[in-house]
Amino acid sequence: MTQFFYSALIFDKTIILPEEEAHHALKVLRKKKGDIIFSVDGKGGWYKTVLETDNIKNCKLKIIENKKEFGKPDHYIHIAMVPPKSHDRAEFFVEKAVEIGIQEISFVLTQYSERNNINLNRINKRAVSSMKQSLKAYLPQINDMISITDFIENCSNSEKYIGYIQDENKNFLSTIAKPGNDYCVLIGPEGDFIPEEVHLAQSSNFISISLGTSRLRTETAGICACHILNLINEK
Amino acid sequence: MTQFFYSALIFDKTIILPEEEAHHALKVLRKKKGDIIFSVDGKGGWYKTVLETDNIKNCKLKIIENKKEFGKPDHYIHIAMVPPKSHDRAEFFVEKAVEIGIQEISFVLTQYSERNNINLNRINKRAVSSMKQSLKAYLPQINDMISITDFIENCSNSEKYIGYIQDENKNFLSTIAKPGNDYCVLIGPEGDFIPEEVHLAQSSNFISISLGTSRLRTETAGICACHILNLINEK
Repeated sequence: MTQFFYSALIFDKTIILPEEEAHHALKVLRKKKGDIIFSVDGKGGWYKTVLETDNIKNCKLKIIENKKEFGKPDHYIHIAMVPPKSHDRAEFFVEKAVEIGIQEISFVLTQYSERNNINLNRINKRAVSSMKQSLKAYLPQINDMISITDFIENCSNSEKYIGYIQDENKNFLSTIAKPGNDYCVLIGPEGDFIPEEVHLAQSSNFISISLGTSRLRTETAGICACHILNLINEK
Repeated sequence: MTQFFYSALIFDKTIILPEEEAHHALKVLRKKKGDIIFSVDGKGGWYKTVLETDNIKNCKLKIIENKKEFGKPDHYIHIAMVPPKSHDRAEFFVEKAVEIGIQEISFVLTQYSERNNINLNRINKRAVSSMKQSLKAYLPQINDMISITDFIENCSNSEKYIGYIQDENKNFLSTIAKPGNDYCVLIGPEGDFIPEEVHLAQSSNFISISLGTSRLRTETAGICACHILNLINEK
């Protein structure tokens, strides 16, 4: 089965595998000098390489073929979520969103937030491992926690949506989003947005949407929004 | 925020809350005699009740209103998965599928299965907690592990699909499934089905489908299949 490795250390004809990746290649998968290794850089770069030095501290790959913009989508999905109390669930969202396909993730602080920080290091590691697992070459941009006011002010995606629970409006995201566009979906916390937050978003052209008839946990809503936007772009 | 409790001990005018549920109601949420409590029985029964005795070992609710077939869908979704090595990931699939909406879950043993047993007790607990969380009154039927041969022979759903990795055929599930129907989607293991398994399924009218362009983990494929079938039925 195809396997991708990750490295951002790309030189002219050579890639250096970071120690953790080198350990996985050499010790777990027992790759030897001369073996073919596929590597990605998280920025769309895909590399077919040959293992040149089998030293964990200095594991060199010789590039024999490369592609730019590998699997580049013609749409842009940005999900902004108010993370749930459990960090595990936030990480799980990131893992699933990367598998399904996402370009940007933001974490937002609201009145009813259940956590006011996020471990970006763990989140990024989970994203890298999910990118490799799903054979992608792009890592999403992942932004640190920001207040909802600042988030709404600075959000520049062209289709902007907000999903909240106490919503009379039954616009399904699956019906109103258009293919090939640049989207942002803002997902509320377990305790919902307060009316002021919804109004602020609406006054900045966020359209309120429903993801379906079920009441979903925050991380599930994020996964479903991401999946719907990917489905729209596959038809 | 509305909260559901679960009990299968339903009498004419009374419900007995199981000890675990009673503990949650009385100790965590500090419900008192006379408080309103909503309870579901996992079979479509929804009950508005009044807390009558606040004793954890014998917590009685008096039924003041009830509904049958609460939120009954007009379709039937059955996902059969070859569970991943990590039991946690199998449980996670169950949690998310119940939130999104599912009527039956099976676990199947194949040539490349990574685990040959499932903890039905843990799986059922996770399903109950997810049913309550998402304000549903139905628990899916959850079947114990069965061999793929027996599964295919006994599967009686009317639209049958099989998703596997090495598939040339690019029928998207989202395009070919019809609303208001009775579906089964069989999802393969990390190491894929062997050709004999695929042929066996196809000879029993399983149609091979793709869930999209991304390579998904088993539990993610299960969640996405379940989500697609729910979306089709919401339009």
